[in-house]
Amino acid sequence: MFKNFICLEGIDGSGKSTQIASLESLLKSRGLEVLKIREPGGTEISEAVRQILLNPAHKGKMSDITELLLYNAARAQLLHEVIKPALEKGIAVLADRFAHSTLAYQGYGRGLNIDIIKNLLHVTCADFFPKTFILDIPVSLSRERQQKDKSRGKADRIEQEDNIFFERVRKGYQEIAKENPETCILLDATRPPEDIFKLLVSHLDG
Amino acid sequence: MFKNFICLEGIDGSGKSTQIASLESLLKSRGLEVLKIREPGGTEISEAVRQILLNPAHKGKMSDITELLLYNAARAQLLHEVIKPALEKGIAVLADRFAHSTLAYQGYGRGLNIDIIKNLLHVTCADFFPKTFILDIPVSLSRERQQKDKSRGKADRIEQEDNIFFERVRKGYQEIAKENPETCILLDATRPPEDIFKLLVSHLDG
Repeated sequence: MFKNFICLEGIDGSGKSTQIASLESLLKSRGLEVLKIREPGGTEISEAVRQILLNPAHKGKMSDITELLLYNAARAQLLHEVIKPALEKGIAVLADRFAHSTLAYQGYGRGLNIDIIKNLLHVTCADFFPKTFILDIPVSLSRERQQKDKSRGKADRIEQEDNIFFERVRKGYQEIAKENPETCILLDATRPPEDIFKLLVSHLDG
Repeated sequence: MFKNFICLEGIDGSGKSTQIASLESLLKSRGLEVLKIREPGGTEISEAVRQILLNPAHKGKMSDITELLLYNAARAQLLHEVIKPALEKGIAVLADRFAHSTLAYQGYGRGLNIDIIKNLLHVTCADFFPKTFILDIPVSLSRERQQKDKSRGKADRIEQEDNIFFERVRKGYQEIAKENPETCILLDATRPPEDIFKLLVSHLDG
C-alpha cells in the first residue's frame, strides 16, 4: 500500500466526489501535487475499454466474465501508464473507485466467484492497492440523492440495475472493510460531509 | 473437452488456414454443420476489443497484463455468445487459435507468469477447451512463407515482433503439447499439407 494512493469507494450517491474535492484541497494546501483518477478510463487504451463497458447496446449481451476481464484490463493500463509513474514522482493519486469496486459489483453484486476475483485483482494490481475509504449509505438514500442531483446525465448501463443488486453491493463493501481493517475504512456516509471528512483525515494522518 | 470443438495452433506461416480448410470440407462431407472462428473477434464486443489489441498506435504503450486481460475478455465473450450455443446445437466449431495462443505468446513469448495465465484461462474457458493441433515449424521457415504470401496485408503489431520472441513462442507450444498429450497434438508442419492432414484426421478419429 502507498500512503499517497487514496481511494474513495461506495455506491453512487454516497458522496465520493465531495470527499475527493475536500481531500484534493487539503493535500494541495500541504504542498502535494494531486492527480485525480476515475475508472474505467484515464489512458487512451483504458478509455477505449470504457466505451465497450458502458455502451448501453451491450446490456444483456456481455458475459459477467467478459465484464470482469475488461474492467481489469482498463485498470492494469491505468496503473502502468498513470498511477505508478505518478506515485514514483511523489504525486498523490486520488481514485474515485478502484479494485474494490470490482469485488463489490462483480463479486458480491453479480455473484461471480469471490476468490477468482481476488486472485485476478492481485494479477492486475500486484502491490499497488490504495488506502481506501468506503462511504456506506442505505440504497434508498443513494437513490434519493441521485434523483435530486440534476447535474447527472442519463442513467448508464450500471445505474439501471435494480435495488436488490445495490443491496448486495453495499453488503459486499461492508464485508471488504471487515476483512481489510488496516487498508479499507468504512465511514457512515449518512453523516454531514464535514464530519465524514474529519474522520477521513484522522485515519489518513493516524 | 468437446469432440466437435477443434483448434489449430502454431506461429504464423505454419499452415493453419490450409488445414482448417481441409478439415471444414471433411466435416461437411460427413454431414456436420461447421462454424469457423478466429480470435480475437467474432462478436460485436470481441471485435471492439480486437480493435484495441491490434491497433499499431498502442505498440509500446500497452502493458503485458492489459494485453493478457483483453485477449481473455474477447475470448470469454466469444465462448458465451458463439461457441457454447453452437456446440449445444451440434455444430462443429473450428478455431484458428484459442486459449493456448495466450499461453504461448503472452506466457512463453513475453515471459508473463505461466501459472497466472493457466489460472486465468480456466477462469475464462471453464471446461470449454478444444481438441488442439499444434503445427510446429522453425521460425526461419515461418518468415520465408509469410514473405512469399502476397495475399497478406501490412504486418500488424504482433507480426512486427522479432525472431527471438517467436523462438520462445515455438518452444512454448512444444511444452504445451508435452504437458497435454491427450488434448494437444504436435504435428511436424514442414511436411506436405496432405500428410499433415492425414495425421490430423487419424488423431481426430482415433
